[in-house]
Amino acid sequence: MNLPHKEERHRLFGSVAPGMKYKPTRKEEMVDLQNLNRDFLFSIKKVGINNVKIPVQLQSRLSPKHQTTIANFSLTSSLSHKQKGTNMSRFVEILEKYRQQGFLLKFSVLHRFLEELSQKLEQEATYLQVEFPWFYERIAPSSNLTGLNHANIKLDISYHEKRGFKDTVSMTCGITTLCPCSKEISEYSAHNQRGYVRMNVNISSSYVNDELNWKEALLDAAESNASARLHPLLKRTDEKAVTEQAYENPRFVEDMVRLIGADLYELNWIKSFTVECRNEESIHLHDAFASISVKK
Amino acid sequence: MNLPHKEERHRLFGSVAPGMKYKPTRKEEMVDLQNLNRDFLFSIKKVGINNVKIPVQLQSRLSPKHQTTIANFSLTSSLSHKQKGTNMSRFVEILEKYRQQGFLLKFSVLHRFLEELSQKLEQEATYLQVEFPWFYERIAPSSNLTGLNHANIKLDISYHEKRGFKDTVSMTCGITTLCPCSKEISEYSAHNQRGYVRMNVNISSSYVNDELNWKEALLDAAESNASARLHPLLKRTDEKAVTEQAYENPRFVEDMVRLIGADLYELNWIKSFTVECRNEESIHLHDAFASISVKK
Amino acid sequence: MNLPHKEERHRLFGSVAPGMKYKPTRKEEMVDLQNLNRDFLFSIKKVGINNVKIPVQLQSRLSPKHQTTIANFSLTSSLSHKQKGTNMSRFVEILEKYRQQGFLLKFSVLHRFLEELSQKLEQEATYLQVEFPWFYERIAPSSNLTGLNHANIKLDISYHEKRGFKDTVSMTCGITTLCPCSKEISEYSAHNQRGYVRMNVNISSSYVNDELNWKEALLDAAESNASARLHPLLKRTDEKAVTEQAYENPRFVEDMVRLIGADLYELNWIKSFTVECRNEESIHLHDAFASISVKK
Amino acid sequence: MNLPHKEERHRLFGSVAPGMKYKPTRKEEMVDLQNLNRDFLFSIKKVGINNVKIPVQLQSRLSPKHQTTIANFSLTSSLSHKQKGTNMSRFVEILEKYRQQGFLLKFSVLHRFLEELSQKLEQEATYLQVEFPWFYERIAPSSNLTGLNHANIKLDISYHEKRGFKDTVSMTCGITTLCPCSKEISEYSAHNQRGYVRMNVNISSSYVNDELNWKEALLDAAESNASARLHPLLKRTDEKAVTEQAYENPRFVEDMVRLIGADLYELNWIKSFTVECRNEESIHLHDAFASISVKK
Repeated sequence: MNLPHKEERHRLFGSVAPGMKYKPTRKEEMVDLQNLNRDFLFSIKKVGINNVKIPVQLQSRLSPKHQTTIANFSLTSSLSHKQKGTNMSRFVEILEKYRQQGFLLKFSVLHRFLEELSQKLEQEATYLQVEFPWFYERIAPSSNLTGLNHANIKLDISYHEKRGFKDTVSMTCGITTLCPCSKEISEYSAHNQRGYVRMNVNISSSYVNDELNWKEALLDAAESNASARLHPLLKRTDEKAVTEQAYENPRFVEDMVRLIGADLYELNWIKSFTVECRNEESIHLHDAFASISVKK
Repeated sequence: MNLPHKEERHRLFGSVAPGMKYKPTRKEEMVDLQNLNRDFLFSIKKVGINNVKIPVQLQSRLSPKHQTTIANFSLTSSLSHKQKGTNMSRFVEILEKYRQQGFLLKFSVLHRFLEELSQKLEQEATYLQVEFPWFYERIAPSSNLTGLNHANIKLDISYHEKRGFKDTVSMTCGITTLCPCSKEISEYSAHNQRGYVRMNVNISSSYVNDELNWKEALLDAAESNASARLHPLLKRTDEKAVTEQAYENPRFVEDMVRLIGADLYELNWIKSFTVECRNEESIHLHDAFASISVKK
Repeated sequence: MNLPHKEERHRLFGSVAPGMKYKPTRKEEMVDLQNLNRDFLFSIKKVGINNVKIPVQLQSRLSPKHQTTIANFSLTSSLSHKQKGTNMSRFVEILEKYRQQGFLLKFSVLHRFLEELSQKLEQEATYLQVEFPWFYERIAPSSNLTGLNHANIKLDISYHEKRGFKDTVSMTCGITTLCPCSKEISEYSAHNQRGYVRMNVNISSSYVNDELNWKEALLDAAESNASARLHPLLKRTDEKAVTEQAYENPRFVEDMVRLIGADLYELNWIKSFTVECRNEESIHLHDAFASISVKK
Repeated sequence: MNLPHKEERHRLFGSVAPGMKYKPTRKEEMVDLQNLNRDFLFSIKKVGINNVKIPVQLQSRLSPKHQTTIANFSLTSSLSHKQKGTNMSRFVEILEKYRQQGFLLKFSVLHRFLEELSQKLEQEATYLQVEFPWFYERIAPSSNLTGLNHANIKLDISYHEKRGFKDTVSMTCGITTLCPCSKEISEYSAHNQRGYVRMNVNISSSYVNDELNWKEALLDAAESNASARLHPLLKRTDEKAVTEQAYENPRFVEDMVRLIGADLYELNWIKSFTVECRNEESIHLHDAFASISVKK
C-alpha cells in the first residue's frame, strides 16, 4: 500500500497549509463534506454514534412479562475508502423513528432496524450494540415473598448485505459463591461473596427467532450452578435456607465457568460461547477470575 | 436583592444581542476578560480546576515508609462579585511548581500551597481536595508472608486569609463483614462479604502537624473492628485463620459504624467525624448501609 | 461520654472472646439479634439499603408526558442507641409493595412512602434518595426534527415524626459552553465543549405539591443560560444555527453558575440552592469548575 | 463431547447431595482441593486474579524519564481439564516478589515474569494485562511553560511454552477535534470537543525490545493528526495559538482514525493495529465514534 506523504495527507483531510491562515469560503457555497468522493486511504470498519440512551420495550417469560427499560445504544456502519464521512444524523433519525413506535427489542425488529439503516446510509454493513438491565421477579425460598432482581444484557448484532445477520447475546448477572478451600480447611464457616458471571453466546442463525427463551436459559445456567442465587428479599427463614445452601454447594471460579459451560454446551441453539466468572473475594481487595471459550 | 432582567444579564455576560450577528473585535486590542470589573450578580464560592492527575510523594509509618502515588486534585478559590473570571492557568502553574519539587503531601506543604495560591490569585479563600491510594504492607496471620494493600484517601483543606486553615481527612478501606443474623439462624456457616468503610474526620487545628499518625489510626479503627481484615496474600493456613476469625467476630453495618465510632471518639485530635459502612451483601444485588455523625 | 473498653465493646457486639473458639447455639433457640435491647454506644443517623434498582413511573410537562424509567434507591432510617440492628428486609418489602403498584415518583406518593416506612420500622426519621434519568423530547432549531434528550435527577427527601418533610431536588444536565477568552483573543473560532450543570435545590415546604413544574424550571435555567443547548438530532441547517448561537453567547463556568443562579433566585418556591458547572475543556485533560450557594 | 448429568456434575464439583445436610470432615485430614485430579469437563483458558493495584516503575523518552506510577494487573494462566483449581496465592507471591524489586515495566522484565509464573504454576500458558497512566511533560506552544499530561496504557502479553510471547500494547489519549462540517457551514466558529483515541497494536516479535520507543510513537501518531493537542497549561497567547490551530485543522472521527492509521502503517515494528476515536461531541449528549483495523 502506497500512502501520500504526511503533509499531503493533512491537506487531503482539509488542513490549512502550514504557516497559512484560514481563508473563509463563501457560506452560500457550503460543501457537503461528508459526500466528498476521493481516495481516503482506508476503508472504515465501524463509524457512527455511541452512548445514546433511550427507553425501550422488552418481552420476558418471567414476570414482569412486558417491561420498559433504559437502553444504551451504539450504532455503526462500514464506510468505503471513497467516502470522507458518514451521515451521523441519519443514525439518530432512524433510532428516533423506532423509539416513537416503542422500540420492542426482539430479533425481528432489530434485524429490520439494521436493514433499514443499511439502506438509508447506503452501506453494506451495519452494526448495533445495545445494553440494558432486564428485570425479573424472584421468590424467596421459604417465605415465598416476591422482589425484583435484574441482570445486565448486551446484544451485539451485525448485518451484511451479502452475508446476512450475526447475533451475539451477553448476560452479566450476580451470584453467591462460597469457597470450597475455605470450607475444607476451616473448623467452621467459609468465606463467600458476590460474584459476577458473564456469558457471551453466538446463536446459530437457524435458531434465531423471537420465541427463543435465551434470557431465561442464560440466567438459569448461571444461577443454578452457583453456591446460591441472589435475592432481593429474604426473611429470617429464607436467609437460613440461602446460607446453608451456599455451604452445601461450594464453588471456585473454575467450578462456576465449567458447570455453566456444561449447561450452555447442552443448549442446541448455541454455536459457541465464552463464560467468565469474577468473584469479589470477601477476604481480598482483588478479584478471582476464570474464563472458558468453547466452539461446538 | 435586585437582579437586572434576563436579557440584560445575558448582555452583561457577553451575549450578542438577540437577532444580531457577531462582529469581530480587532484582535490587537484583546480585552483581558477575566479582569473585567463590574457587578457580576453573585460572589462565587469556589472556582478553579478539577480532575488534575499528577504523581505525588507520601510518608507513612507503615512500609513502604516513603512512596510515590498518583493523586487527583481539585483546586479552587473564592471570587468576588466584582470580578468576571478567575485565572485558571495560575492554578496549573502553581501545581506544576510544586510537582517539580516532588510535592510531598504533608500538612505543612499543603498549607503553604494554599497560602501561595491565595496570594497569586489575590483571593481571600482557597480550597484543595486531593484523592490518592495509600499503599501499605500487610503480613499474613499464619505464614507471615507479605503483600501490598491500599486504602483510598481524600484530603479536604481550606484556607481563609482571616480564619486560617480547616483540615478534613477521609479514608475509604475494604474489610470483611460476617452477618451475625445469618450466623445465629443457620445450622452452619454465615454469609459474609467485602464491605467498605468510609471515615470523614475533622482534625482539631491545634493537633494538625506532619507527625500526626492519622492514616494509621483511621486504618486501624476500621480494620480492628471488622469481622476480619482484607489480605493481599493468604496461604492455606492463613485462609483458615481468617475464615474462623470472621465467624468469631460477626458484624452488622450498624455494629461496624458504632465500634469504629467508639475508637474515633477516643482519639483526642479528632473534633468531629462521620463513619459509614457499606456491605456489598453476598446474598443480595443491593448493599447494606449505615452511618453515624458525632461532634465531640 | 464514657465508653466501655475495646475488648468489652467487641463482646457487646457479639465477638467470641479472644483465644476462644465459637460454640454453636442450638438453632431451635435462634435469637432475633436485631431486636436485642441494650445500650449500643451511639444512635445511628441512617441505616438501610443502597443501590436498589427498579423501574418507576414519572409525569412530565414535556413529552413524553408519562414515562417509565429506571431508578436507583437508597432507603434509610434512624436507629436508637438501644437497638442493635434495623430490619433490612422491611425496606425491600415496602419498596416492592410500591413497585407492584407502579411507583409513580411524585411528592405525595414519596411522602406517603416515607411515613409508611417510619411506621413499619417504628423509627422517628426516614430518608429516601432516588436517582433516575428523565427523558424529554428536543426539537431541532431549524429542521424542527424531534429527538430524545435526558437529564439526571436525584430526589433527597427526609421525614421526621415531629419535624415533617424536607424536600431537596437535584438535576445534572449537559450543555455547550464556548470560552469567552478564547473567542476574544483568537483571529477566528473559540474552544467549546460539553459541560455539566448540577443544581441542588431546597424547596419551600409550602410550595411542595405534585403540580410544581420543578423539573422543567431547572432544565430551562441551565439550558437557557448556556452558550447552546445539547441536541440529539441536528441536520446541517440546525448545526449551523447551534454553532453560531454558541459563538454569540460565550460563557465561562463562572458566567454559567451566576446566570443560572439569577434564574433560580427569581423562582419563589426555591428556599436555597447550589449551582455547579463543570466544563470538560476541549483544550485540557482536566475540567474547569465553579459553584455558588445561595440562601434566600 | 459427552457430559455427565447435571446432578452428577454438581457432585463432581463438591455439592452435598440434594436433600442432605453437610457432614463436616475432620479438619486434620484437610484435602488440598485445588490438586484433585479428575476429569473436570473443560480446560480453562484463563484463571487467576484481577484488579490488583500496585506501584510500578516506568522508563520514558519524554520527561520525566524515570517515573513511578500505579498499575492495575490481571494475571492468569491456562488450567488443564484434569485439575480442579489453580493456586491463586502463587500469583500474588510472584507479583509481590517483583514489586519488592521495584517492578520496572519493560518487555524483558515482563517476559521473565510470565515464564517464572508459568514454571511456578506448572501451566503451559500465562497471561498478563496491566493498565497504568503514563505521564509526560508538555510545553505550551507560545509561552513555553511546562505542565504534565498523561495517556492511559494497557499492555497485554501472553506466554506459551511452545509458541513463545505475544505482545500487544494499547494507548488511550485525549485530543481536540474540531468539526469540519460545522466549520464549513457556519458563518464563524465550529463546534469542537475533547476526543479520545485508542490504539491497539500487535508488535512484530522480532522488534520487541526494551529500547523500542512505542509509547512516544503512538502518542505522536494520535496527537500530530488531531485538530490540536491537549495542554495542561496554556497562557493567553498559547490559548490563541491552540484555538486557531484547531480551526485550521478540522477533523471528523473518520479523518482521525484514517490519518492515525496511515502513521501506524508506516511504522515497521507494527504487525497489525486497531484505531478508534470517540468524540465527546460538544453539541450532543452522545458520542461520535469510528474504528479501523488493519493487518499489514
